[in-house]
Order: sequence, then structure tokens, then C-alpha cells
Amino acid sequence: MAKRIVIIGGVAAGPKIAAKLRRLDHEAEITIIEKGKFLSYAGCGLPYYICEDIKEQRELMETPVGVLRDPEFFEKTKNVKVYNRTEAIKVDRLKKEVEIKNLDTNQIKTLPYDYLVFATGAKVMIPPIKAIDVDQPGMELGCMDLSHVYTLHGIEDAEAIRWTIKEKMAKKAVIIGGGLIGMEMTESLVKSGLLVTVIEMLPEILPIIDDDLGILVRRYCQEKGVNVRVEEKILRLEGESGIVKKVVTDKGVYDTDAVIIATGFRPNSDLAKKSGIEIGETGGIKVDLFMKTSDSFIYAAGDCVEIENLVCMKNAYMPMGSLANKQGRAVAINIAGGQEVFRGGLNSVVFKLFDYTVSRTGLGMKQAKDLGFDAEYTLVPAPDKAHYYPGAKRVITKIIVDKRNGKLLGGQFVGTGEIMKSVNTVATALYYGGTIEDLSMLDIPYAPPYASAIDNNVCVAANVIRNKLNRSMIGISALEVEKKRKRNEDFILLDVRTPKEYQQVRIPGSTLMPLGVIKQKLDELPRDKEIVTFCSASLRGYEASIILKSNGFEGVKVMDGGLACWPYELEK
Amino acid sequence: MAKRIVIIGGVAAGPKIAAKLRRLDHEAEITIIEKGKFLSYAGCGLPYYICEDIKEQRELMETPVGVLRDPEFFEKTKNVKVYNRTEAIKVDRLKKEVEIKNLDTNQIKTLPYDYLVFATGAKVMIPPIKAIDVDQPGMELGCMDLSHVYTLHGIEDAEAIRWTIKEKMAKKAVIIGGGLIGMEMTESLVKSGLLVTVIEMLPEILPIIDDDLGILVRRYCQEKGVNVRVEEKILRLEGESGIVKKVVTDKGVYDTDAVIIATGFRPNSDLAKKSGIEIGETGGIKVDLFMKTSDSFIYAAGDCVEIENLVCMKNAYMPMGSLANKQGRAVAINIAGGQEVFRGGLNSVVFKLFDYTVSRTGLGMKQAKDLGFDAEYTLVPAPDKAHYYPGAKRVITKIIVDKRNGKLLGGQFVGTGEIMKSVNTVATALYYGGTIEDLSMLDIPYAPPYASAIDNNVCVAANVIRNKLNRSMIGISALEVEKKRKRNEDFILLDVRTPKEYQQVRIPGSTLMPLGVIKQKLDELPRDKEIVTFCSASLRGYEASIILKSNGFEGVKVMDGGLACWPYELEK
Repeated sequence: MAKRIVIIGGVAAGPKIAAKLRRLDHEAEITIIEKGKFLSYAGCGLPYYICEDIKEQRELMETPVGVLRDPEFFEKTKNVKVYNRTEAIKVDRLKKEVEIKNLDTNQIKTLPYDYLVFATGAKVMIPPIKAIDVDQPGMELGCMDLSHVYTLHGIEDAEAIRWTIKEKMAKKAVIIGGGLIGMEMTESLVKSGLLVTVIEMLPEILPIIDDDLGILVRRYCQEKGVNVRVEEKILRLEGESGIVKKVVTDKGVYDTDAVIIATGFRPNSDLAKKSGIEIGETGGIKVDLFMKTSDSFIYAAGDCVEIENLVCMKNAYMPMGSLANKQGRAVAINIAGGQEVFRGGLNSVVFKLFDYTVSRTGLGMKQAKDLGFDAEYTLVPAPDKAHYYPGAKRVITKIIVDKRNGKLLGGQFVGTGEIMKSVNTVATALYYGGTIEDLSMLDIPYAPPYASAIDNNVCVAANVIRNKLNRSMIGISALEVEKKRKRNEDFILLDVRTPKEYQQVRIPGSTLMPLGVIKQKLDELPRDKEIVTFCSASLRGYEASIILKSNGFEGVKVMDGGLACWPYELEK
Repeated sequence: MAKRIVIIGGVAAGPKIAAKLRRLDHEAEITIIEKGKFLSYAGCGLPYYICEDIKEQRELMETPVGVLRDPEFFEKTKNVKVYNRTEAIKVDRLKKEVEIKNLDTNQIKTLPYDYLVFATGAKVMIPPIKAIDVDQPGMELGCMDLSHVYTLHGIEDAEAIRWTIKEKMAKKAVIIGGGLIGMEMTESLVKSGLLVTVIEMLPEILPIIDDDLGILVRRYCQEKGVNVRVEEKILRLEGESGIVKKVVTDKGVYDTDAVIIATGFRPNSDLAKKSGIEIGETGGIKVDLFMKTSDSFIYAAGDCVEIENLVCMKNAYMPMGSLANKQGRAVAINIAGGQEVFRGGLNSVVFKLFDYTVSRTGLGMKQAKDLGFDAEYTLVPAPDKAHYYPGAKRVITKIIVDKRNGKLLGGQFVGTGEIMKSVNTVATALYYGGTIEDLSMLDIPYAPPYASAIDNNVCVAANVIRNKLNRSMIGISALEVEKKRKRNEDFILLDVRTPKEYQQVRIPGSTLMPLGVIKQKLDELPRDKEIVTFCSASLRGYEASIILKSNGFEGVKVMDGGLACWPYELEK
């Protein structure tokens, strides 16, 4: 008899499972239950749809050859039954039945299954922010009760935001939350012509990367005209006639025509939990290596599951479309009788922010320390191609490594240059549990239009950490240098660039001593003070520290990443 | 006492060794011997200098901050003594001395060393092509005896070619050899306004990739107006008044104003050999894992050494700037007393050809078979980003794998899309001896502007091979299909695209049966003939083959890469 498979969720993992399963088993009875109207759409494309980089809604739901993936497509081409606008409301695991409800007709139906799949995705976290409406004094409102307050989850959200912009009802927007979605929406709304304010509660935006890179990205956004506020708490929203007009924080009041709430997602595992399926510590559905839940006839995949972080082997929540699809493929193979293992993820992320790319894989320095790793890192700002090749652009690379064994822990990348080639390399090395020695010796290809001879963003960065690990270089971050300056510590910040470079731009209070003359001027440097050397990217800074060290200066430090990673004031 | 290190060769590995060694040992007496006038220049940048993408010669010899790396720079900033225009003519290994000769003054000098390094690079292979000059009848000439016949090795060569173009002495050029340098020069000369003919002796250009991709690149060059000839043997060059005017082959006569000989390089290991150092089977200097030669006091690095291919563990010659620099770094660390291992290379290559990128890592299908591997491969043409994201461009991915254990053997990439992210991923997986399962499960990051959710060029390609390995898909190459057609074999070439697509362009003799109607039209298909399905990229072709298989059709094949990889005639 044909297997009956019911898949709850029709956005990413669900349709993937259905399509792959159909290829593996042409007799199976496959059903998708989807709450929304649309299915199999590119959720990650929504910010680009809002700003009309992607013109038509259907482009988000088309196959590469332009066929719309609507319910009819699934039924006709894939022989997959689709119930959209339909919610799965109850699972009877003993009878192996799902109760579903049509959201338009409220009709209830029961579907039997041999295998059930939870592909229920994530749900938006709505913070407990209150709202008031000057036209409805005394009414207690939640933040979503005012109009023009949006989240970004499904196509309907994107349509609403796009419509608000198109109808010219919004000139200003406040984005609550400076995480990945908040920053993707920042670009989208700025491109749409809005004045954007981003308000982040934490000390820095983008918790997906470390603060030393986050601050550089924030500065970049500020240069782009975005008002980015950190360490600022939302007190309430204020509306008029039901429409949001102001965002009030502990530090100010912002007039606005729209608010986007982008404070994160959590696994949509409610129905699974209600059905008695085991839920993990992150709130995601617990699955084994085969994506099977605690019930042998129920699988789960996508943004509703908890998986393992392959770097630290801890349970983790990684709501990423790339992982959802890989998990979905594994579920399909296993339901069809195969043995496909999904081991976990690396928390790899990339996103576009104006001309910047921001990417991360593995652990950040903060995470690594929180997990008890004795970690070292490096910051290397360098061109993405041969520096003499036209169009070379800068990427700042941060590599994080376990000091005790040289094992890679993570990589982060920020800049206008090409980043995928580097983050993919580091992610692949992480997958294999690679070391920093490996990274410095990888034979990745080189030609001037594509990379530097010793790849700056991978191999050179690895070499810099190796220099740090063997103590030929002692680093100090710009953030720590700034703290010293604020505490008025007595130390020398030694700029070893040329006088010409120094004249153009310099750190206030820094001392100029070009690399070429250091050997002649050793007597001018005090031996009882800490010296921190730097240049534009800290290669010359490193050379200067070696000269000083070989002349008996002790404890000379090099400022990580030099001027390129200095996020504070500069004199011009 | 300070160590005395003499480095023979000052282009890539040599200066790298000197610079790194100086950072490790501030007392060492370091000397570089360089035959040419220039040192530490970007040899790989020469084609871009010729076509003036790079304007000034000094850009090829500047540090990222614009300091010229001339002998004075090395002496002043690095405390490295440089003898340029100087040849090392003899090594006395017992006395540990090198005899050097100034090429301008013929002065001879002897330098003692504690450690000697051969960084003597490669030398151009000049084929035994004869030339005649109509104005010197009866004179027997070699091909280099005529003017305007060039090789591309050092800056002097590039200057000569650029000068010939600038002085408008050349409107046409013939490039002998369709390998990497020949094709880089093709772009360079076309960009410079010349009419270019490339003549390759082998059946296909670009032996660095397999012929099924080579033919696609050749077609692309032909579309760009380049006359690319294969399987054509040069008989002789003909000149007038000492200047080349014609190239005569076994198939034709080509008028020309200049000839570039690009028939390959070999290790410049003559002095090492003369000195009694062991030479490997490839002609390169034999080195151990620490880059030490058969003499404990002599190291070697760069284009003059033989290294190991990490995929097949065979001795190999890989004259690449990226490897030269890594080897150089290892030599410096080891001379300074460290223990740095250089394990080998993957033969990773990338180069630019107009809007195409061409790249390769590991073994090709042909090499793999020659080495006795039972290899399988796939061809996947797919966009480099989410297909709906503006500016997505096509990349054709070829992955090669060992059938017996699923181990990766190599990857090749051709197309206008972004390729580095994929070739770096495959190269890294190869470095770790990874499998095709790994490749399909790698957590490389995804966002629509950068990749597809399941990365097309890595994970999807891996999945396609996995389908082939487990026999859910049987592939056949376009080249084999064309052979069948030429032999008038009775088989059905089943195009499963839409009628609209078919009308636009189709393979002559193919049969249209859109994917959506196959199930209804099974009776129209003969069960006793071989059926080969395809579509634009062969995803629908694959689905069609599954439908046919599940309906009892046996041995249905899918044409690898579909129309996108079909290099022969098309009807429009």
C-alpha cells in the first residue's frame, strides 16, 4: 500500500520534502497543510521584494523556468495534495491522524498518516511593548494594535509594508531591533526612500557578529544616513487615529510613519509540544541525526527544530533557509527508507547591507569565551583581490581559534569586497574540525582578479593568528585602546605610517614614527611605557613591533586591524 | 654568529622567504640573487598590464601602500642585500659557496652561505618550430629568431608586447597554445584591440579542465570574435625583414603581426641539477615536507620544485604563485629553526576570460581515469545566486568523485557567475579528503544576493552525483549524445521543456514532450529504444526520467547539464 505522508508547513522544508519524496516514491500519498495562502515562497527574498529589487510577487514563488509553485502546480506536476489556508490543529499519535481546519470555511477534516512531518517554521517574537493612541485615551494597547506596525515573516507582511510605501503613507520608519532582519529591512526601506531609525536595546547591533565588527557596520550605516541607536530601550509606541506616530524610548522620542518589529524568531513548536513530542532546550523540536522526533512516525525539519552546533556540539536554534532545505531532503530520504544523516549546522549567516556584505560562520569571540574556550582571534583588513588589480575592495576578516589546540572556532567577515569565497572556505574547514595551520596552507586558487597570492582573507588571516599564538605578535583591540585612552593611561600609540598618511588622517594623541626610521629613533621611545604600534592595516605595525622587540622593548602590542578597524574619532 | 642565507631568485618565493625570515631573525644576513632587473613583481598580473587594466609598471611592484619593492626597498626596509642583473652560476656545496656573475659587468663574486635557497622559478618551453624569412632565403631560423615573436614570462616580455601594441605595429596576433597563459593573453590582446587567433595542437583548449567544459569555453571565445583552432599543428613561422608575418599550420596560413608562444613552462632546475641536488620525475627539484632538498643546507620553493598532489599523492608540478608564496613562508620558518610543513597542492587554478571565470581544483575526469580511479561526475548549470535575485549569473559546475568510496576527486567551474565561493569550498573539502556526502551537507551561508538556499554550485551538484551513484539517475554527456547522432543510432532525444522553450531553440532531431504531459503520453514512447531526456539544465529531464522509470521504461538516461552544456548546433 502507498505510504501516506502528511507535512505540516508549506514554505521551505515542507515543499522540499514533498518534491524529493515524490522523486523517491512515485506511489506515496503526499499532503501539505499550509496555514497561509501561499506556499513554497522565498521568505529570504522578502526584503528585496519590499524595495522592488524584485518586482513581482510571483517571482518569489516561481521555479527557475518561471512556473508558479501554487497548489495547482504541486497537485498537477508533483502529485502532491495541498491544503492551504488550512491549519493543523490536533495530532492523534495513537490513531496516527491529524485534524485540520480550513481557515476560510472553518471546516474540520481528519487526515490519517503513516508518517507525519512538522515543518511548522518559526514565529515572530513580539516584545511586550505597550502602545497608546491619543485619539483613544485610556485604552491599553499592545504594540501590534496600532496600524503601520509590522513584522516581517510571510508574504502578507511584505505586501503590507510595500503597500504602505507605495501609497506614500510613510516617509519615516523606526525599526525595532538591530539584528539580521532589522538590518536587511534597513537597507530595504532606505532604498525605498524612507528615513530610517534603528533602535537596538543591546550595546551593539548585529549580535550575529562580535562587537568590534558590529561597531564598524553601525558606523557604515550611519554614514549611509541611517540613525542607528544602541543601548536604547523602547518605552512605548504612540499613535493617532489608530496609526503609529511616535516611538518613545528611554533616551528620546522618534516621529515615525511606520514601525517594523524585528526582535527575533522562535521555533513554532506549539502543536508538536501539544502532541507530546519532545521539545529541546532552545524551544525547538528535538530530532535525532535522521531528523526523527521522539515519535518514530513523526519527523521535523526547518525553523521549528533544534539542531546541534557542529563547532561546540551544543544544542542550538538556527532558523536558516539553507539548513531547512538540507534537513528537508534528509527527511524525504529517510521516509522513503533511506539513511540520510543531518549532523548539524555551523550557524553560517550572510546578508547584504547596502554595499557591505556581513557574514559569520561558527562561534564568535564572545560565544567562544562564554562556552569556556581559551580563544584567540585576529582582525585583518585587506583587499579581496590582488591589491593592484582594478576594483579590489576591502574585507575585514576575523578568525577565531582555540588557543589550546589551534582548532578553528569561527570566522566573521565585513566589508565591500567579495566575502562568500572566504566564509565558505572557513565554514568548510570548520565542518572538518580544521586547524589554523590548515587554513594557512589551503590550496585555494589564485589569480589577480580574484584573490591575492597568499589569500588575504583566509591564509594571511590564519598566518596572523599563528603569529599571535606563537607570541611573535601581541595584539590589542581598538576597543581596548579606546578604554585606555578614556582612562587616561600613560601609553604610546605609535603610528608607523608615512608622514603623508599621518597628515591625511590620524588618531588623536597618536605619535608618528614611520617604519623606515624606527631603527634610527629608538632613543626617542621610552622603555618604561607600554607601546602600541599600528598602521593602516597593522602589517607595518607588526613589523615595527618586531623591530622594537629585537631592540629590547618589552610587551610591545600591535593594534588589531590598524586604522581600518578603528571605529572612533579621527583627526583630519 | 648571524646565519648567512643566500636566495637564488627574486620574483615570488624568493622575496617572500627574505621578508618572512627577516621578521623571524633580525640578525640573519639575507641575500637575494636575481637574474632580471626587477624583483618581487606580480608575474600573474602581466596580462592585465599588457592590456592596460593595470596602467603603470610600478603597480606590479608596489606594496599595498604604494612603496616600490626595488632593491633599495629590500636593503633599506628589510635589511636584505639584493644583487639584481646577477646570475648564480655555480654552487660549491662542500665549501657552501655560490658563484655569482653580474650580467652587466660580467664581474664574478663568491658568496658563502649557511643556507641556500633555490627559488629559480620556471622557464618557458619553446617548441621546436622553425621559421623562415623571405628576405633571408635559405637561412634556417628558430621561431624566436623573428621579431614580434614573444613569450610571456617576465616584465621585459610584457613591456615588449605592450610596446608593440602601443606603437600600433600589430593589428593581428596568433597565440600558439590554448592553455591558461594562452587564454589569458587572448583576453588581454582582444582588449587591446587586436584580432586574435589561438592555435592549439590538442583536440581541445585548456587542458586544465575537461574537454566537455573546454569546448564550452572555446565556443564562448568564438562568440567573442576569437578565432580558436584546435587539433592544428604549427609547421613554421614566416617573416619579412626579420619580422613575423605568417603562421603556417597543417590546416592553413594565418597572416599576423605578432606571435605569442604560450606552450607551457617547466621547472628551472638546471643549476640545482648541476649542483648535484636531486631532481624529481617532473623535472622539479625534489623537496621533503619541510621544503628541504637532498642537501640539508639547501631549500627550494616556488615554480622550480616538484610537490605532491594531495588528491592522488603523485608527484606533480604546480607552478602557481599561491603555492610559491606558501612554500616560501615554510622555507623561512624552517631556516629560522621552526618546523613548518608544506604538504602539497591541489592543482587549484582560476583565471578570467572576458566575462567568464574558469577554475579547477583537484583531478579532472580524464586525469582521474588515467590514474585508475573509477570516477563519476556531474555537470550542473545553475545561477550563482537565488534565481529570482537580479543579476544572478550562470555557473556550470563539474564535480568528480571516486565511485567506490564517495571521496571527492575534483571540481571544475566555468561561467559568468561568481565561482571563487564554490571552488574554494571544493578545494577545502578536498584538502580534508572529504566525501560527496559532506559536500551536500556543508553549512555554507545563504542569502538571495549570494547563493541559492541549497547552494547550486556545491550542494546541489553534490546531490546530483549522489543521485547518479545510487542509480536514481543515469547520465550521458552531450559529447556521447553527439557521437550517437553522428553514428545515426536509433534513440530518442526527449526534450521535456515547454513548447514555447522548444520553439525558441532546440537540438535538431530532438522530440518534444513537456514534463507535465509525459504521464498522459507514455504510449507515444517506444519501449524498445533508448531514451535520453533533457531540458534547459536537466532538472526536469531528471524528473522525466524518474516518471519513465516508474512506468517501466528501462535504461532511461539524462543528458548531463541539458541544453546549457550542449556545445553543438541548435535550431532556432
